[in-house]
Amino acid sequence: MNIILLSGGSGKRLWPLSNDIRSKQFIKIFKTDTGYESMVQRIFRQITAVDPSADVTIATSKSQVSTIHNQLGPDVGISVEPCRRDTFAAIALATAYLRDVKGVSENEAVVVCPVDPYVEESYFECVNELYEAAQRGESNLVLMGIEPTYPSEKYGYIKPKQNADGSQGWGFTEKPTAQKAAEYIESGALWNGGVFAYKLSYVLGKSKELLGTSDYYTLFNGYEKYKKISFDYAVVEQETSIDVLKYSGTWKDLGTWNTLTEAMEENSVGEAIIDDSCDNVHVVNELDVPVIAMGLKDVIISASPEGILVSDKNKSSYIKPIVDSLNQSVMFADKSWGTYKVLDIEDGSLTIKVTLKAGEHMYYHSHERRDEVWTVISGIGKTIVDGMEQPIKVGDVITMAAGCKHTVIAETELQMIEVQIGNDISVSDKKKYEMPS
Amino acid sequence: MNIILLSGGSGKRLWPLSNDIRSKQFIKIFKTDTGYESMVQRIFRQITAVDPSADVTIATSKSQVSTIHNQLGPDVGISVEPCRRDTFAAIALATAYLRDVKGVSENEAVVVCPVDPYVEESYFECVNELYEAAQRGESNLVLMGIEPTYPSEKYGYIKPKQNADGSQGWGFTEKPTAQKAAEYIESGALWNGGVFAYKLSYVLGKSKELLGTSDYYTLFNGYEKYKKISFDYAVVEQETSIDVLKYSGTWKDLGTWNTLTEAMEENSVGEAIIDDSCDNVHVVNELDVPVIAMGLKDVIISASPEGILVSDKNKSSYIKPIVDSLNQSVMFADKSWGTYKVLDIEDGSLTIKVTLKAGEHMYYHSHERRDEVWTVISGIGKTIVDGMEQPIKVGDVITMAAGCKHTVIAETELQMIEVQIGNDISVSDKKKYEMPS
Repeated sequence: MNIILLSGGSGKRLWPLSNDIRSKQFIKIFKTDTGYESMVQRIFRQITAVDPSADVTIATSKSQVSTIHNQLGPDVGISVEPCRRDTFAAIALATAYLRDVKGVSENEAVVVCPVDPYVEESYFECVNELYEAAQRGESNLVLMGIEPTYPSEKYGYIKPKQNADGSQGWGFTEKPTAQKAAEYIESGALWNGGVFAYKLSYVLGKSKELLGTSDYYTLFNGYEKYKKISFDYAVVEQETSIDVLKYSGTWKDLGTWNTLTEAMEENSVGEAIIDDSCDNVHVVNELDVPVIAMGLKDVIISASPEGILVSDKNKSSYIKPIVDSLNQSVMFADKSWGTYKVLDIEDGSLTIKVTLKAGEHMYYHSHERRDEVWTVISGIGKTIVDGMEQPIKVGDVITMAAGCKHTVIAETELQMIEVQIGNDISVSDKKKYEMPS
Repeated sequence: MNIILLSGGSGKRLWPLSNDIRSKQFIKIFKTDTGYESMVQRIFRQITAVDPSADVTIATSKSQVSTIHNQLGPDVGISVEPCRRDTFAAIALATAYLRDVKGVSENEAVVVCPVDPYVEESYFECVNELYEAAQRGESNLVLMGIEPTYPSEKYGYIKPKQNADGSQGWGFTEKPTAQKAAEYIESGALWNGGVFAYKLSYVLGKSKELLGTSDYYTLFNGYEKYKKISFDYAVVEQETSIDVLKYSGTWKDLGTWNTLTEAMEENSVGEAIIDDSCDNVHVVNELDVPVIAMGLKDVIISASPEGILVSDKNKSSYIKPIVDSLNQSVMFADKSWGTYKVLDIEDGSLTIKVTLKAGEHMYYHSHERRDEVWTVISGIGKTIVDGMEQPIKVGDVITMAAGCKHTVIAETELQMIEVQIGNDISVSDKKKYEMPS
């Protein structure tokens, strides 16, 4: 099957593990036999288990591309949104990407699915049924309805109704009161899982109609001018030719610490001691030093280079405005070539640890307003500094004055301590150049 | 007055702020007009307020000397205990130090006082009265009795009793049951504050009697062979010529997070956001990143380069065995020349930030099994490397192969990132040399 995964934007509700550049779907928190996997890795593994030949495309922003390749490998398709324009434009662009970049026929179906529900494998069996139903073309849209387990006020509902012509139709309501929700459920309503299957031609037609084109490159280049509008509002709620398939298994929205920890197999990830007097306490610790928890109940503790959260689980969903008030600089990041982590910030200097994957290299670049010193602490490779190539090994020191062009190429995995020195250090102070051949 | 402050050993009950090399009395946690002061700084300030000419000597171990000078200045007297031998030997040594090093007359009095009670200034007025009473010489020992506020099971009690000759005497009991404690209090007992005043000659006599000498240098050199015995047990409980003066003000033992936070003026020290839904929550954060606390009650959160503690306040006193199980390396330290902080640990490398105070220098030293790279990030000074002197400034890089002798001398405050590289990095791998002249 063809599947588009919508990989949403930065979220601060799982701070300090999610931040402006790392979204919650990339946090490695689910235990596997060999370590931990992220939401996106988990879903990718589940899709591949149900359909080994599934053709997966991720619709996302530029800032997530490196992390997606790091976590899913180099082969996954990525439809990059030049900016955020809500789900209608994102789905139209990704659908056009399938036709115009990947060469998928307009007559083929595709399923669009969010990247972050916590589900069982049977969810993707249902996704596959949606795909096949769309492929049969009995209706324009096939949706997934999740069997509700309680009258939630947080979700959208798909309600059965009679169309004007007496046929079976569907209505949509967002976030009703608990009482209304109970009435809906009574009458057979389902949660709207945000999963849509259709033939490419259907959404490409909508794209032409609403955005004036269905050509991928035209959409990409004009993306900024499109209105922010959701696929539900622009398409689903206007459509009468809809089928709904029901999924009855586990379906969790892991958007808050409270729900996320429910899906953790063990009470801690990372270095942690949770003493016997604790009850329902989870620790997710990405630092190199231990967390000790004593005598706590219903508490989440999370620590990363960005900061430390200690919250009652039921209060943890209110974190966003607090984090928004922090105005923090980013303390760690995944790059296409590896990772970096800020070790120390002083007036006039910044010290970071850089880890390059074997075979990878940074852009060839220079800075206007800072000098840099690299000390290699593991691995081998080579540097190019102002055109001069030189092998490097553990203990080597490379100094680069402001203005000097430089890069490093890792032969094995390579780690360096980078000391940046200057009075106006900024991530935006970077000029990129062609690699010297 | 002459006053000896007993500065106790390393305590892990205030982990992660206290550790093997930083004792609780040095944690800067009490708000002042200009910043924060530690227990020892607070007490020193209180003593000087009551008696500006007080002659203070600190009895402590070698490991605390740098920190004491950093916190109290270079002029305070320090009687260094070559090893820990409990309070009798420590008090005998410090008393001999007063006579043989500081030249205090045997006929003068001195008051011995622990360094860590949290008290009002009137406590030191009482200390001064003890001193004057001892100076008058009406009894061999003058003790401070703290007026009890509840029948504590944790403290020692001083109980009035009749001596065999019908005169007023005093008996001593450690840690009674609450019921016994209530009976003692009913009959006029006081808590034993561990404050003793006496004439030098008295304790020097006891030293001769029990340790065979009262000579400072002989005591110092033979210190290791002395028995571990407390001053209470060896002297106080054997003495009949005792006066007791009563102190009725605030007196708190800040030995656990629970009691320590009671003495904090504000709910947080360091970067912290405690939201409105928290109740009786304290944060002490020595890291450069924020702590966010939400929906917690009666909780202490403390973070340092050693780790993170999150504990119910009433459970926080049980931390010691957990911390003992950690077997951690020291992540930060006060040195005579400044401070260091571990930034990163990898197999084969260790990265630290070194801060030297203006005018200070490290020992001239070398390492057998590691190379080092210094990158200066602030200040100016000079290095001496294998005898070669060289001025240094921001951005300079100094590389030192294993075996090479080196030191740095700070002209202004000077900060460096030090990268240590080697397969067997250890603090014990250090040879010291005379500074080249």
